[in-house]
Amino acid sequence: MQSQLNHFDEQGNVVMVDVSAKNATLRTATAQGRITVSADVLRAIVQGTAAKGDVLGVARVAGIMAAKRTWELIPLCHPLALSHLSVDFTILEQESAVLAQCTAQLWGQTGVEMEALTGVTTALLTIYDMCKAMDRGMELSDIHLVYKDGGKSGQYRREEEQT
Amino acid sequence: MQSQLNHFDEQGNVVMVDVSAKNATLRTATAQGRITVSADVLRAIVQGTAAKGDVLGVARVAGIMAAKRTWELIPLCHPLALSHLSVDFTILEQESAVLAQCTAQLWGQTGVEMEALTGVTTALLTIYDMCKAMDRGMELSDIHLVYKDGGKSGQYRREEEQT
Amino acid sequence: MQSQLNHFDEQGNVVMVDVSAKNATLRTATAQGRITVSADVLRAIVQGTAAKGDVLGVARVAGIMAAKRTWELIPLCHPLALSHLSVDFTILEQESAVLAQCTAQLWGQTGVEMEALTGVTTALLTIYDMCKAMDRGMELSDIHLVYKDGGKSGQYRREEEQT
Amino acid sequence: MQSQLNHFDEQGNVVMVDVSAKNATLRTATAQGRITVSADVLRAIVQGTAAKGDVLGVARVAGIMAAKRTWELIPLCHPLALSHLSVDFTILEQESAVLAQCTAQLWGQTGVEMEALTGVTTALLTIYDMCKAMDRGMELSDIHLVYKDGGKSGQYRREEEQT
Amino acid sequence: MQSQLNHFDEQGNVVMVDVSAKNATLRTATAQGRITVSADVLRAIVQGTAAKGDVLGVARVAGIMAAKRTWELIPLCHPLALSHLSVDFTILEQESAVLAQCTAQLWGQTGVEMEALTGVTTALLTIYDMCKAMDRGMELSDIHLVYKDGGKSGQYRREEEQT
Amino acid sequence: MQSQLNHFDEQGNVVMVDVSAKNATLRTATAQGRITVSADVLRAIVQGTAAKGDVLGVARVAGIMAAKRTWELIPLCHPLALSHLSVDFTILEQESAVLAQCTAQLWGQTGVEMEALTGVTTALLTIYDMCKAMDRGMELSDIHLVYKDGGKSGQYRREEEQT
Repeated sequence: MQSQLNHFDEQGNVVMVDVSAKNATLRTATAQGRITVSADVLRAIVQGTAAKGDVLGVARVAGIMAAKRTWELIPLCHPLALSHLSVDFTILEQESAVLAQCTAQLWGQTGVEMEALTGVTTALLTIYDMCKAMDRGMELSDIHLVYKDGGKSGQYRREEEQT
Repeated sequence: MQSQLNHFDEQGNVVMVDVSAKNATLRTATAQGRITVSADVLRAIVQGTAAKGDVLGVARVAGIMAAKRTWELIPLCHPLALSHLSVDFTILEQESAVLAQCTAQLWGQTGVEMEALTGVTTALLTIYDMCKAMDRGMELSDIHLVYKDGGKSGQYRREEEQT
Repeated sequence: MQSQLNHFDEQGNVVMVDVSAKNATLRTATAQGRITVSADVLRAIVQGTAAKGDVLGVARVAGIMAAKRTWELIPLCHPLALSHLSVDFTILEQESAVLAQCTAQLWGQTGVEMEALTGVTTALLTIYDMCKAMDRGMELSDIHLVYKDGGKSGQYRREEEQT
Repeated sequence: MQSQLNHFDEQGNVVMVDVSAKNATLRTATAQGRITVSADVLRAIVQGTAAKGDVLGVARVAGIMAAKRTWELIPLCHPLALSHLSVDFTILEQESAVLAQCTAQLWGQTGVEMEALTGVTTALLTIYDMCKAMDRGMELSDIHLVYKDGGKSGQYRREEEQT
Repeated sequence: MQSQLNHFDEQGNVVMVDVSAKNATLRTATAQGRITVSADVLRAIVQGTAAKGDVLGVARVAGIMAAKRTWELIPLCHPLALSHLSVDFTILEQESAVLAQCTAQLWGQTGVEMEALTGVTTALLTIYDMCKAMDRGMELSDIHLVYKDGGKSGQYRREEEQT
Repeated sequence: MQSQLNHFDEQGNVVMVDVSAKNATLRTATAQGRITVSADVLRAIVQGTAAKGDVLGVARVAGIMAAKRTWELIPLCHPLALSHLSVDFTILEQESAVLAQCTAQLWGQTGVEMEALTGVTTALLTIYDMCKAMDRGMELSDIHLVYKDGGKSGQYRREEEQT
C-alpha cells in the first residue's frame, strides 16, 4: 500500500492519474453491500421475485447500467470499457436484509474496484426506491470491496468474508 | 405507510408511477451515511482539507453532480429539476470515519429522498476512490434517510439520530 | 396540421421551438411497435418471462429509462420532466412477434409523442440485443403513434388500430 | 446460431456477457430501416435538403451521436469505443419513405450490431420529430441488420436486400 | 451586483444555491463568441454551408444539444427544462472568423446565462473539431454574455456590442 | 496539413472518420484559455483558493469530468478512454485573468486535442458560473491548442506561447 493519496500532483491539485505507461492485465473486482429492510418489505421482495413485481430484477439492471457509467459519476475515475459485469443478490432472512454482490472485469490499465462498488450501491438504492412507500427506515451498510486482482498491486481478498 | 410496493401495476409490471395529479408542494429530504477508514487515511483527509489535496472538496462536488442525475441511475425515479442541493461532511475522529449528509429540495409533485441518498453514496464512493491506494478495507455504512417533508405522506424524521 | 416543418426559423436554420408562451396542459401520448422474431426466440421469450431469463422485464426497464432521456437523443426535443411512464408487451403468437406499447404523461407546455416513441424503440432494441445470438433476422416494424392528447392540436387517435 | 439466450447465467439472471477472453477482431455492422411519410412531408424533406431546413442533416448527426451512446441505453451492451460511424439516407419516392442506413466499426472483442441499429432508429425518430407538426401518421418499419462481420460467428448478410 | 460569490455557504463549502423561494419569471439570455480561422478554413466553411459539407449545421445542432445538458457539465448549475434554444452564426470575412450566438429561454426560478454560454462554446468547439485537419491554430475568443433578462437582478445588456 | 475538411464523405455528408486502420500511438494534447474578470472577482478567487470557497478546485473537477465526456458533446469525436487528464490554473494578476491549461493523454488511434479544449472551456465556464453574481462582464478568450503529439501528423507546438 502506498502511504499517500494518489489523485494529487505535487501542488496538491487533483488529477486523473496517468496510467498510459501501465501494462494491460486482466482486472477483476468484486464488491458487496447490504440493505436492511422491514419484515414486510423482505416478504414483498421475496414474493415479488418468485411471482410478479420483480424488485431484484430491476435492481440488477440498474446496478449493471450504473457500473458502466462509474467514470461519469466519480470525478477521477478513468473511462473504462468493461468486458463483464454481473450483480447477484442473496436474501438474508435472519438479518432481514438483501445482500448485493457485483463483479466487474476488464483487460486494461487500471482497476475496476469503483465499478464494482458503484454497481452494488446503485442496486441497493434501487431496492430502496422501489420499497420506500412501505418502509422509510431501510439502511444500506457493509459496502466494501471483497476481492480484486490484476495490476501491479496484485490480489486483494478481504479477510472476514461473511456471506 | 402503504402495504404494497408502488412501482408495479396490477399485472406486476414496473411503471414510473403517475404523479401528474399530485399537488406540487415543497419537498425536502436529508440523507446521511459514513465511510470508515484507516487512521492513516483519516489523517490524510483531514490534513488535505486544511492544506492541499482536497478529498472532501472533490467528494462534495461529486455528490452534488450525481444527485442531479439520480433519475438517470435509478430506473423508476422521476426526472426532477432540483432547486437546492448541499453535501456536508463531519469528521468522526473516534470512529475513524467521515460522515456525509446530503440535503435536496424541490417544489414539485414527488419526493427527493432518492436524490439525497444518491448524493450521499456518490460522495462516499468518491472518498473511497481517492483514498483506495492507501486502504482497500474502507467500508460504507449507516446510509439512510434522516428527514423528509412535503407531499401527502408528510414529515418523516428518523428516530435515533446519532451525529 | 401545419403545412410546414416547425423546427426551422425563417432562415431555414434549426431551432428548439419556443414554447414558453404555451399553456401547460396535461399531455399524454401512447406509441407502439413490434419486433418479429423466429419461433425459437418467441418460445424463449415466453418461457423466460414465466420462469427465468426475463427478456421483457429488462426491455421494459430499458424503455422507461430511455424515454426519460429522449431530449438527450433527439436534437430538438425539449427537456421534459415526465410525470408517468409505462411500457407494456403483448405476445402475438400468430405473427411470431412481440408488440410493445409505451405511454408517457406530463403536465407541461409541449407534447410527449417522442418520449413514447423512444420508449417503444428502445424496448424493442433491447429484445433484439438479448435474443440476437439465436436470430439475427429479427425486424422492428409498425412503430407509430397510437394516441395523443393535450396542447393546442388536441387529441389524435390513429384510425386502424390493430392489436 | 446458439440455441439459447446468452445474456443470462445459469440461474436465469441477466449479466453483461464476459468477453474478456475473446479475440479482438475488426467488427463491422450495417443496419437499416425506413420511415413512411405523407407526400407533403417527403416534399418538405427533399426540398429542405437541397435548399434550407436540413431535416436529414440533423437526423444524421442524431444517429451518429446516439450510436456512440448505445451502451448507455441498451442495458446489457458493452461500452465500446467505436472507430467509425456513418448514417446515410435514400429517398424512396415511390414508397413515400426515407431509408436510413447506419454502419459502425470497431477493432474489439464484441460486435457492433446494436450500435448500427441504434443509429438507424434514432435517425428515423429525429425525422419523425422534425416533421410531426405536418403528419402524425408517419411509421418506422423494416428496421433490421443488413450485414455484419468479425468475431467467432463471422459474416452475416441478410438475404433479400431491397434498397 | 453582489459583492460575494454565491455558490458557497457560511463555511465556505460549495452548494447548489437554494432557489425554491424565488419567483418563476421569464428568463432569457444571449451569449456570443467567435473562432478565428485561417483563410482556407473560412472558405471551406462558407462553401460547405452553401453546397455540401455543412460545418455550421453540425455545430448548430451540437450547441443546442450541449446547452440542454449544461447542468450536467457545470457542477453547481440547476437542472433546467429550457423552453427555447437557438444558435446562429455570422461569417466575419474581415476578421477571418465565425461569430456564434446562442439564445436560451425558460419560465423558471433561475437564469439561463450558463446555458447560452455553453451553447456558444460547444458550437465553436465543434467548428474547431471539423476543421482541425486543415488548421490547428484556430482560436476561440470574445466569449461573453450579451444580454439577459428576468429574475430579481433584472435586465443586463453588455455595452460595447460589436457584431 | 490536409487541404480538406475530413469529417465528410464524397457526398459531403458528415461521418465519424474511420480510424480503425490507424496505429495506436501515445497521444498527448495541451490546450489553454483564459477568463478575464473584474478586480473584485480576481480577489475573491485568489482568497477563496487560499482559505475557503474554492472556485478553482470546483472548476478543475468540472474540467476533468467534461473532458472525459467530450465525445458526447462534439458530434463527430470518437469515444475515447483517456489515460490521463489534468487541469491547471495560473493567476494573471496584471491582466486580471485566470489562465486554464488542460492536458489529455491516451494510447490510441486518434488525437486528444478536443478533449484538452473541452476541459479548458468547461473549467473556464465553471469559474464564470461561480462568480457571475459579482460580475456579468467576464469574458473567455485565447482558447487554443498549445501542443500535441502522436499519430501520423506528429508534433505540433504553437509558436508564440505566452504564459
